[in-house]
Amino acid sequence: MHEKWMQRAIDNALKAWGHTSPNPHVGAVIVKDDQVIADGWHKKAGTHHAEKDAITNAREAGKADDLVGATIYVTLEPCCTYGRTEPCTEWIIESGISKVIYGCTDTNPEHAGRGFNYLLQAGVQVEGPILEEKCLWINRFFFKWINDNKPYVILKMAQTLDGKIATESGQSQWITGPEARHQVQQLRQGCDAIMVGGETLRQDNPSLNVREIDHPRHPQRFIWSRKEFTGDYKAFTQAGGATFCHAQNKSEWQDFLTQLGTNEVSSLLLEGGGWLASSALKAQIVDEIQFFVAPKILGGEASRTSVSGLNPLSLNEAIDLEFLETKTCGKDLLFIARPIY
Amino acid sequence: MHEKWMQRAIDNALKAWGHTSPNPHVGAVIVKDDQVIADGWHKKAGTHHAEKDAITNAREAGKADDLVGATIYVTLEPCCTYGRTEPCTEWIIESGISKVIYGCTDTNPEHAGRGFNYLLQAGVQVEGPILEEKCLWINRFFFKWINDNKPYVILKMAQTLDGKIATESGQSQWITGPEARHQVQQLRQGCDAIMVGGETLRQDNPSLNVREIDHPRHPQRFIWSRKEFTGDYKAFTQAGGATFCHAQNKSEWQDFLTQLGTNEVSSLLLEGGGWLASSALKAQIVDEIQFFVAPKILGGEASRTSVSGLNPLSLNEAIDLEFLETKTCGKDLLFIARPIY
Repeated sequence: MHEKWMQRAIDNALKAWGHTSPNPHVGAVIVKDDQVIADGWHKKAGTHHAEKDAITNAREAGKADDLVGATIYVTLEPCCTYGRTEPCTEWIIESGISKVIYGCTDTNPEHAGRGFNYLLQAGVQVEGPILEEKCLWINRFFFKWINDNKPYVILKMAQTLDGKIATESGQSQWITGPEARHQVQQLRQGCDAIMVGGETLRQDNPSLNVREIDHPRHPQRFIWSRKEFTGDYKAFTQAGGATFCHAQNKSEWQDFLTQLGTNEVSSLLLEGGGWLASSALKAQIVDEIQFFVAPKILGGEASRTSVSGLNPLSLNEAIDLEFLETKTCGKDLLFIARPIY
Repeated sequence: MHEKWMQRAIDNALKAWGHTSPNPHVGAVIVKDDQVIADGWHKKAGTHHAEKDAITNAREAGKADDLVGATIYVTLEPCCTYGRTEPCTEWIIESGISKVIYGCTDTNPEHAGRGFNYLLQAGVQVEGPILEEKCLWINRFFFKWINDNKPYVILKMAQTLDGKIATESGQSQWITGPEARHQVQQLRQGCDAIMVGGETLRQDNPSLNVREIDHPRHPQRFIWSRKEFTGDYKAFTQAGGATFCHAQNKSEWQDFLTQLGTNEVSSLLLEGGGWLASSALKAQIVDEIQFFVAPKILGGEASRTSVSGLNPLSLNEAIDLEFLETKTCGKDLLFIARPIY
């Protein structure tokens, strides 16, 4: 039963996918006698937190009395400090809600548990975690950024089963099918920044914006290239333009990420090509890979591969992965994995 | 219930994995009142068929009387013609078995249904197919060979997620883990012939025999190379040695396969490298691919990829695959797919 309501809270959280950064995605649902009193979620930085949103929704629906003795499911431990909004713990206590069931605690040890203590002292019961892994997952960008002041980095590639992302001449559209490409739009929507290599920009001339999504939120665009260049490319002429990134080694990449983090960029999506993938993996900045694999074999000794770069001298240079999830995406497969450095 | 007993018949069939060629793998189980009377399976060409084996086992266990009115589950339609052994239909009728439940019929339209008609005329009930897909699958080598007089060809590769099978210098041991390598030994055990490219032979110096398997049956060895060469390679010095194959284009490959088929080779396992994989795929001789994918990224512009060969000019040259099965194999993943030409 707890899982059912927590899943609803997660679904609520994700209604604001792509709009809350650098705040987390948080969802809530207030339940009494197995009936929903109100849903709520955090919509964007500076607006109500999920708990306050749900409580407000209940009151506006004339259900203020129902809050007394009710249970609130919330995906993340309620805050008890004054930030851009009032602390949620105050709202919960004042509403008469008697029980808080949480999905996960803040991963920052300085914050974790503080909200709970505050609630317990006020006589509110606290229970959890419920669906903790899922609740942590939907805020992996936020937790990375809040703890390290650097964005969470995802390397996304679309390749054939034999690892090819383009022909020798650079033709790459389209390796994967429409469902996979739509999934990439979803991913872009959730990411604050996006980056492609200069060669990919010249070959594909991508817009690097978000399409096929309601209320799109376009990421900041970065072009990874030693030398800056100009040209009539879509990425340059879109609102916001594109910025060059020159990072080549680990230290330069770290500096670049720190700069992004300081500018409240909590997530960076690397979309290839192979040299960018290689550079980022070697610098150990990639937190997650998402490889879409099409049911195709392209072949070709000089066809472009998903991870290129300098040639390793030994298999020992291979980067180990932990497969997190494999799922079908139309005719394609999506592998989500975490590099183990 | 039927599925349970048919699965047991399949398991019986596979006890002779690798030993029945060019005959099919066939398993049987005789059941009465939901109790097993006897198991049986075809052990090798020239010995009892599965039905006769099960009936003989029942009689030898003093259960001849139990056969009357019993049901026999058999993975393949019983034969009714005199080949190397007497027809199974005669044995079944004579034993008193009153019902035959079959897994699949012969895929050769000239043979399909003949055994059934013979049984039905003798008053034996016939029911099926049960677990047809599995029963066809375990004999995919046999069906290809009996219908086309050519071996079933499997292309097996072991690669990283980014499609690499070796470093630029050729180091490839080991990309995949022990479970995947054991699975390859199982596959070799089932195949009549095995082939690697000359470059792979020189780099890896593989034995190309079957290890880690009880009662190993070693495949015939073929080296794919335009030019023949000699050297102190294990594949040459093993019993049976190795034979060169010079096939380059579709017609040469077809001739080679016809020659193998005539010599009762019902299955050929291609184990790389990338140029052999490319040549075989372009000649459209590959019936199935088995790609083992390690949770690793190797990278490298000149690292060797699983399917190499001449560079395609367009993505349209990619070969489409139908993914049949994806399963974990230790830490690795195994993709079984069928090329769609």
